[in-house]
Amino acid sequence: MNSDTSSLLRRRERLLGSAYSLFYREPLHLVRGEGVWLYDANGRKYLDMYNNVPHVGHCHPRVVDAMCEQAALLNTHTRYLHENVLDYAERLTAKLPDELDTAMFCCTGSEANELALRIARSVTGARGVIVTDYAYHGNSQATWEISPEDCSDEHRPDYVVTVPSPDRYRGRYRGDDAGERYAAHVQDAVDVLAERGIKPAAFIIDTIVSSGGVVVPPVGYLSKAAATVRQAGGLFIADEVQPGFGRTGKNFWGFAAEPVVPDIVTMGKPMGNGHPVAGVVTRADLAAALAGKGGYFNTFGGNPVSCAAALAVLDIIEEEALQQNALRVGQHIADALRKLSDRHECIGDVRGNGLFIALELVTDREQRLPAAALASATVNDLRDRGVLTGSIGPDNNVLKLRPPMVLSRADADFMLGVLDRSLEAGTDM
Amino acid sequence: MNSDTSSLLRRRERLLGSAYSLFYREPLHLVRGEGVWLYDANGRKYLDMYNNVPHVGHCHPRVVDAMCEQAALLNTHTRYLHENVLDYAERLTAKLPDELDTAMFCCTGSEANELALRIARSVTGARGVIVTDYAYHGNSQATWEISPEDCSDEHRPDYVVTVPSPDRYRGRYRGDDAGERYAAHVQDAVDVLAERGIKPAAFIIDTIVSSGGVVVPPVGYLSKAAATVRQAGGLFIADEVQPGFGRTGKNFWGFAAEPVVPDIVTMGKPMGNGHPVAGVVTRADLAAALAGKGGYFNTFGGNPVSCAAALAVLDIIEEEALQQNALRVGQHIADALRKLSDRHECIGDVRGNGLFIALELVTDREQRLPAAALASATVNDLRDRGVLTGSIGPDNNVLKLRPPMVLSRADADFMLGVLDRSLEAGTDM
Repeated sequence: MNSDTSSLLRRRERLLGSAYSLFYREPLHLVRGEGVWLYDANGRKYLDMYNNVPHVGHCHPRVVDAMCEQAALLNTHTRYLHENVLDYAERLTAKLPDELDTAMFCCTGSEANELALRIARSVTGARGVIVTDYAYHGNSQATWEISPEDCSDEHRPDYVVTVPSPDRYRGRYRGDDAGERYAAHVQDAVDVLAERGIKPAAFIIDTIVSSGGVVVPPVGYLSKAAATVRQAGGLFIADEVQPGFGRTGKNFWGFAAEPVVPDIVTMGKPMGNGHPVAGVVTRADLAAALAGKGGYFNTFGGNPVSCAAALAVLDIIEEEALQQNALRVGQHIADALRKLSDRHECIGDVRGNGLFIALELVTDREQRLPAAALASATVNDLRDRGVLTGSIGPDNNVLKLRPPMVLSRADADFMLGVLDRSLEAGTDM
Repeated sequence: MNSDTSSLLRRRERLLGSAYSLFYREPLHLVRGEGVWLYDANGRKYLDMYNNVPHVGHCHPRVVDAMCEQAALLNTHTRYLHENVLDYAERLTAKLPDELDTAMFCCTGSEANELALRIARSVTGARGVIVTDYAYHGNSQATWEISPEDCSDEHRPDYVVTVPSPDRYRGRYRGDDAGERYAAHVQDAVDVLAERGIKPAAFIIDTIVSSGGVVVPPVGYLSKAAATVRQAGGLFIADEVQPGFGRTGKNFWGFAAEPVVPDIVTMGKPMGNGHPVAGVVTRADLAAALAGKGGYFNTFGGNPVSCAAALAVLDIIEEEALQQNALRVGQHIADALRKLSDRHECIGDVRGNGLFIALELVTDREQRLPAAALASATVNDLRDRGVLTGSIGPDNNVLKLRPPMVLSRADADFMLGVLDRSLEAGTDM
């Protein structure tokens, strides 16, 4: 570790305390970003295969310009009239099924999920929430309670019931009927809530189940799960904080892989390319339920600068055809990773949609034993070789590939070459 | 209402739904801001006597430049090393008593209070919260529950107990011993919690009790209230989201009016002059309690751009001597309002510190009967006359004067003249 890094680490421990964590055995001191590349203080560059927040590329000049132009002109809140929040709401809802016509804005994904829960409870009068068993939906008290990744069994309140993540590689159902069979657990959860005298307000799920290990819901799952919770009086909330905005390639939203329209869609991270903006889109009749319950206001949410940044992001996704790029380059990566699995026995599974890809590492392919140590070593080794990734999943053995959407085929090939060499070295550990 | 406003209102209702509210009988369509002035779409200008978010003035070029420069260079998160978050944490903690040496960052005041509650509960192992009886601490589920302004008695969970806002004008104690007597209610609240088998995690208060009607805590109150909750094992959380960053004139923080050091200080709105950044400062030993409980991470919180904006705000406060300006101009306004009360029988009370001033309107000075209708009419009349304010308080009869900190004496005199004419017209209603 060089002296610059050591001194920053000491300052950090002193000023931010011990509750903050860092990526990598040798933490990165980044100073510049452009497109899919990040540069450290020594001028070394790294291919960013991890960060989905800089959705249209790090420091995209159009987003920066839009934000700066508006910041120099006016930045207030939604208790005055302003075009930006309306223009953005119009553009955003146009990206969603017709029923989802009403947008509300906040600053973080946690706040979006807080708002979604509030709408669901206002509409249904119920409080139960059904979540997947390793979900992450936020860091506030209420969203922590519905995040089994962080909130362990003994802390889980009675109103939260989990269903198994619909994982066809590692989970209990692996056949063509997996969607149907996993979805049946939503009814089980409704029944457990009923035994506790609690009605369901909502079933909420990442439409690509990220913290569960980048799990793609099997065919039929979302539709049936939504129908089941609705049958019991609850709403279906699609958490699009990670899969949204074209990342999955085929569709602009993760839920759109199925013929289902959520009652509420939440979104955050990529929305402003790093500017703190998040939101909820729902039906007018559902949003109206809040009006009678004190309404909604968020000081910074939907301000003219946030909306200028978010508008620029939508423009860029369309004009640079980034959803199509995600589909094409994502498919190329997935194909290449599957080929790599011929050479690397440690590759247990490759899955994902578009530029949201999981590479699951195992110590035994037959028994699918998770290779957590190898995943951690590989993440650190890739960093040393100039490629940034992270590991995730209940067993922490899944490499998450979720780069900015401007990743080119050449960038992907660079990553694939580095990964090949790293896995070759790693299996010799 | 002109056609531009009507058409924006229709679009807004259609796109944002009915849960959002607007200021003023005739909503404002603002397009530009500079210093203490806001401009509408017709080019008409308004003196902003209300907004504390644009703390160093609307669209201050130094904040805009700092933000844009960093946004063009790099915007990532706190899982990589970066100087900005450390530089800002260093500058910020230097503004606080030595014990408060550890900073953590998020995006909104609600998130800051969420984090403060989480720290308090991790440290104490307790869950009780004591709040003033008309407090507002946020819009998330957990902060709503401790916000009696929004969360009415019948929804209040068992772990929340209220104490009377320490109001010497309208409340039960009005003498020199008011501080002591109001603080005694914190012990009552501890006792109520104990009867429920609950220990207090924290007493949290706006150090100028904003939603309670801009109430300045009487001498001795904060010290004794803090001592009382600590005696019972809880922490003292100072919510500085509104009074912080020099607004009260004499001190940089509202709590500093008393010889007391909070365990946790939360901050938000003015911190980035409109950019969504907020934070918590606490002691290292308290922050460490989180480390064992999953730590803390906020995707956008403490990012390089947010910290660049926040650093510029601190620079400007110091270099433009805005705390001193708040003291001087605030005193001038308070003196002038007291003089105005000779001419206007409806002025019941003038109070506040620095540029955080309440003008309480009454229909009967002797009986202190709240003049809610007059307050509402005055707020709308002032808007029509080019001065922006708002009303607040349990009876909604208090005009809140909380302008950007760059308000000059001449700006103040303009406002005072307009107010004089408005009150003269208003009493003729």
